[in-house]
Amino acid sequence: MPHINLPKELPGISAGFAFRPETAKPMRELAHTLLHEPNSLTPGERELIATFVSSRNDCHFCQASHGAAATCQLGGSETVNLGKSDFMQAKISAKMKALLAIAGKVQLGGKQVTNRDVKAARAEGASDIEIHDTVLIAAAFCMYNRYVDGLGTWQPEDESMYAQMGEHLACEGYRTSSTQRPNDEADTVSK
Amino acid sequence: MPHINLPKELPGISAGFAFRPETAKPMRELAHTLLHEPNSLTPGERELIATFVSSRNDCHFCQASHGAAATCQLGGSETVNLGKSDFMQAKISAKMKALLAIAGKVQLGGKQVTNRDVKAARAEGASDIEIHDTVLIAAAFCMYNRYVDGLGTWQPEDESMYAQMGEHLACEGYRTSSTQRPNDEADTVSK
Repeated sequence: MPHINLPKELPGISAGFAFRPETAKPMRELAHTLLHEPNSLTPGERELIATFVSSRNDCHFCQASHGAAATCQLGGSETVNLGKSDFMQAKISAKMKALLAIAGKVQLGGKQVTNRDVKAARAEGASDIEIHDTVLIAAAFCMYNRYVDGLGTWQPEDESMYAQMGEHLACEGYRTSSTQRPNDEADTVSK
Repeated sequence: MPHINLPKELPGISAGFAFRPETAKPMRELAHTLLHEPNSLTPGERELIATFVSSRNDCHFCQASHGAAATCQLGGSETVNLGKSDFMQAKISAKMKALLAIAGKVQLGGKQVTNRDVKAARAEGASDIEIHDTVLIAAAFCMYNRYVDGLGTWQPEDESMYAQMGEHLACEGYRTSSTQRPNDEADTVSK
């Protein structure tokens, strides 16, 4: 049960976005730039960082929707599941493992990131902008996760809804809604 | 010493913003909407929430700069200092105390916010949008604080620099830079 009077038919962050379009706009834009625009880290790698941090923050809506986007982009759920539970065992690059280690530190607090963590990522080929974006994706999901849970938003249990959202996010990005309001054609997921 | 090659002359978040203007734009816009645009919570009250959360996250740059903005807007530092250390004793409204209690929960994690916390704020006259904005200001500063510290940005010790930044933020808001690069007229604080 949401803490405030949010649109009842919209799940998770979509309800907060519909309630306050003025703040939704820059929040959508930031996610789009970080996760969807061209980058030397693939969209799947960036969604994996978002999913990992959301999992550490215990946010069901974000880890399920971004996990579905990552699954779509990485071509399967095995990497996503291992990425959350034990990323050192996942089939990802050594660079990604070093970046996830940094993201895990940021989730705990910015000061947890050490020169050693950054050196380790750089030794595996991470560029300054990749390190920057990893820090910011992790920091941003500490915001999105708290926003979704702090408002007590409705978070569906039906996994197929997340698969649909994930597909939309993976294909279209974050500027438009991935959820559908009944009788709202303009907001319908385009297939 | 910053973890990546940030512009050396810029303090705190300004260095990250200059390094990656694409993400700076929505991050500035979000802060401007939350802290500076018209709202039933005064700018001083909103800066106090930002300062309080930054203090709980132990981010020197953010608590000093937003604390200076709040001091400017509230007309003195006593409320800001008590707001950080023991807000129940501060000379602020009962509504603000209830909202700061919610912000403190969000800082710990979104799920920490209870119906009881929200009911208490509503009983003191808080509206849905005030509760929403409190949750989002707190969540957003969990991002800004981690960004500033996770990049290892330079954070000046000279308090007069924060007073200058705070004055700019209080007067001009967040769309333009409050810091000055040497020989960069376009980015100069307008007096």
